[in-house]
Amino acid sequence: MEQTNKERSLVSKVMDGLVTGIVEEKYGAVLPPQDVLSKEFDVSRTVMREALSMLLARHMLDVRPKIGTRIRPMHDWRMIDEDVVNWRFRAKPDPMFLRDVIEFRVLIEPRAAAQAATRGNASDIAAIRDAFEAFRTSPPGEPGHQTADEALHTRIVVASGNQFFQQMAAIIRGALSALKPLVEQPPGAWDETVKLHSRVVEAIEAHDAKEAEAASMAVIDYSMSRLSVSMPDAQTE
Amino acid sequence: MEQTNKERSLVSKVMDGLVTGIVEEKYGAVLPPQDVLSKEFDVSRTVMREALSMLLARHMLDVRPKIGTRIRPMHDWRMIDEDVVNWRFRAKPDPMFLRDVIEFRVLIEPRAAAQAATRGNASDIAAIRDAFEAFRTSPPGEPGHQTADEALHTRIVVASGNQFFQQMAAIIRGALSALKPLVEQPPGAWDETVKLHSRVVEAIEAHDAKEAEAASMAVIDYSMSRLSVSMPDAQTE
Repeated sequence: MEQTNKERSLVSKVMDGLVTGIVEEKYGAVLPPQDVLSKEFDVSRTVMREALSMLLARHMLDVRPKIGTRIRPMHDWRMIDEDVVNWRFRAKPDPMFLRDVIEFRVLIEPRAAAQAATRGNASDIAAIRDAFEAFRTSPPGEPGHQTADEALHTRIVVASGNQFFQQMAAIIRGALSALKPLVEQPPGAWDETVKLHSRVVEAIEAHDAKEAEAASMAVIDYSMSRLSVSMPDAQTE
Repeated sequence: MEQTNKERSLVSKVMDGLVTGIVEEKYGAVLPPQDVLSKEFDVSRTVMREALSMLLARHMLDVRPKIGTRIRPMHDWRMIDEDVVNWRFRAKPDPMFLRDVIEFRVLIEPRAAAQAATRGNASDIAAIRDAFEAFRTSPPGEPGHQTADEALHTRIVVASGNQFFQQMAAIIRGALSALKPLVEQPPGAWDETVKLHSRVVEAIEAHDAKEAEAASMAVIDYSMSRLSVSMPDAQTE
């Protein structure tokens, strides 16, 4: 793969130069046209196009008709590679991977709920309530269930205001959908699930961080208690 | 950027097909040669090379002389885009970004220390001790200081055994180096820093998870107390 490596390292160099210009605020809000950039970096238009498309894919740039290539605010830049996250979750999950996912979820989600209670503004909280209403009316088996579930959890993480937690939501979303088929649904489980989620939403609405954290933890505990795979014991090993 | 988008979507399709084959264990341990894959996917060798190099960059593949393109174990696949992390930290940090980084560090690092105490095996723990000795003898201002500091924190996260925490280490590393110039070094600060880190290492060696968590929290608290920027109050929006 000699030639690829050479091309790749040229594209990398150009990306790096573009990013340096961006973080040093050399370009302002909009990048110069591609042919100007190609000349500036003394590379072919193909190499420049490839470098720009790598930055586009990372949500660092935005192509707007008539405006040009706009530089996106830094907190939009994607630190999580969602492709890889989705690919990993597409494979059959092994118990070790499940353990790690759950540990990660236990760490991020209750804290995000607490922060949402502390920092969430009126519109964040209204969005959580709307997402909860959609969730409540989409039990497992309904076509919109998965989407409604993910939307509710995502809304809470977004309301936390922390850009790292927000980006981690991609991993949590992946975990939720990978675990779903493994979680048993005994009679009454859905009512209990709705009740537990409702407790989280109400705590956030009441700006009660401690209660939001505990309620979010209870949601996770309940779904873990119905997980039909044997998990390696986190305390031994 | 019409043509790029078209090329890109072809490369994406091929990547997706390759990954599907990989997670379905169609190829075994080693991918077929590039020309065989090009024929299988009915694309040019350039497109196949590009798709493979995207997977290589994500630590999903490994090129081994005489063996070929080996498929790496799934827990090596990079969910964190380290380029983006480094680029973000290269910009002048704003207070909001600092707040988010610190919240994230407070969440991950003490938990990782606790897990290291619970799960770390003899070689993990020896590596932490070695990293601590290197750290102890590299005060700020010495050329190896930054590297030794990062190595110690990385070792602890690796010993946690959780693949998400391990990958998050990239973000924590970035945070540590971005914050460093903003942390004041009054007389005696280095001795105190060494003492606090030593407490973490000893707790991990003693397999005392609770003490490791508290000690790690104390390390963070101490460096935060010397942070010479005004942080937005986390409790009031």
